[in-house]
Amino acid sequence: MTWHATVLTLFPEMFPGPLGLSLAGRARDDGLWTLDAHDIRAHGLGRHRNVDDTPFGGGAGMVMRPDVISTAIAAHRPEGDPRPLIYLTPRGRLFSQADAERFASGPGLMLLCGRYEGLDQRIIEASGAEEISIGDYVLSGGEPAALVLLDACLRLLPGVMGGAESAEEESFAGGLLEYPHYTRPAEWDGRPVPPVLLSGDHGAISAWRRAQAEDTTRLRRPDLWAAHLSRRISGRQSPQDMTGSVATASAGP
Amino acid sequence: MTWHATVLTLFPEMFPGPLGLSLAGRARDDGLWTLDAHDIRAHGLGRHRNVDDTPFGGGAGMVMRPDVISTAIAAHRPEGDPRPLIYLTPRGRLFSQADAERFASGPGLMLLCGRYEGLDQRIIEASGAEEISIGDYVLSGGEPAALVLLDACLRLLPGVMGGAESAEEESFAGGLLEYPHYTRPAEWDGRPVPPVLLSGDHGAISAWRRAQAEDTTRLRRPDLWAAHLSRRISGRQSPQDMTGSVATASAGP
Repeated sequence: MTWHATVLTLFPEMFPGPLGLSLAGRARDDGLWTLDAHDIRAHGLGRHRNVDDTPFGGGAGMVMRPDVISTAIAAHRPEGDPRPLIYLTPRGRLFSQADAERFASGPGLMLLCGRYEGLDQRIIEASGAEEISIGDYVLSGGEPAALVLLDACLRLLPGVMGGAESAEEESFAGGLLEYPHYTRPAEWDGRPVPPVLLSGDHGAISAWRRAQAEDTTRLRRPDLWAAHLSRRISGRQSPQDMTGSVATASAGP
Repeated sequence: MTWHATVLTLFPEMFPGPLGLSLAGRARDDGLWTLDAHDIRAHGLGRHRNVDDTPFGGGAGMVMRPDVISTAIAAHRPEGDPRPLIYLTPRGRLFSQADAERFASGPGLMLLCGRYEGLDQRIIEASGAEEISIGDYVLSGGEPAALVLLDACLRLLPGVMGGAESAEEESFAGGLLEYPHYTRPAEWDGRPVPPVLLSGDHGAISAWRRAQAEDTTRLRRPDLWAAHLSRRISGRQSPQDMTGSVATASAGP
């Protein structure tokens, strides 16, 4: 069955954008997923197709009207549509790789992209939309976030990843950042590859990569490192830990 | 002076993409920023313009060669270019609104987008590239992340924000998620706007919004909430706290 994304936005021409090229674009050409983007303004009010109004209680910016968004959702979301409805907002909980896996294993997504100060809270509650943020920064609207969220899902769809790309999720395996990568030439610009990687000793390579992943995580992401330590202390080991292999699921011999 | 972004990528046709439309697109038409995207493959090796090779030490995927990336950087980065060089990678530290403000106040950015397993570690070190991640999820490449990072910067450039958008950074003011928004109609689908917002009592509105921002942050983002509490306990108050106003800088009377 084809994975199906529907996007409600004031800028439907931003889609599929980068998703129409490369890995995702080829997969779309192969019929593995489809996308339709619809202009919320088509459901705007009056001659000017207004979609927003000033916030109750005062403050800067404009808020997108609940009635307009409700009509737009109803027009493109069939009764009983099993797809999660996602509203992209910095107020949401953080998007994670686990979300991408969950979404990719389902029938698709419907995405709501806000502009200005975002949507009226009542339509978020009435529609049951899941509020998701891709990170702690402010974007011009939900559209760039939707492209990122979709990209993370699409690469996980069965048949999308070619042989040139690694099929395993290794970037956060065991809750650690990945180890550094090296390829040819073995010496470049006076910089040799770490000798252990040329040793052919798979055990030593695994141990070195594990140590690198731990060091990088501790230095750059104390939050991930603390979570990793507390898992290790409580004995809730990750699958990678339990097999005694290295930080990445695909890096074994 | 025009803010200038240069992107090195295997998919230059992904740019400007969504940045060519809406707020960022109009600003580009007005000459407030420029973007040039260059194909790394133009610097590839041999008849097939190879850019990658298998990883030393084994493992899935391909790694982008340091010599090819070095040549690509040299071709598009003049001696003494003052712009930060950014490599988008899940191994980086997390991108934040403070980064967006720092980058937007500078002359521009040069962005390296990796594909496959990413870049050979030696070119990252030799070039002094800053490694940045937009979040804990895996993308098909650095390109969607670059679009998000640029979008966050571009909206902060002087003259880019129109009157329709809020000029203040309110989404993370005081380290809290923003309060919910409401607009017309005052009652929709049996759901009234919270009465305090119609009261005209600015003090009560501020207090309600502050409480909403705190509740939402505590429930959805225990990480931000813990940081907020520790700031409050240590007495390092944010500017918003000190003026006694609400969670957003722009929501005052």
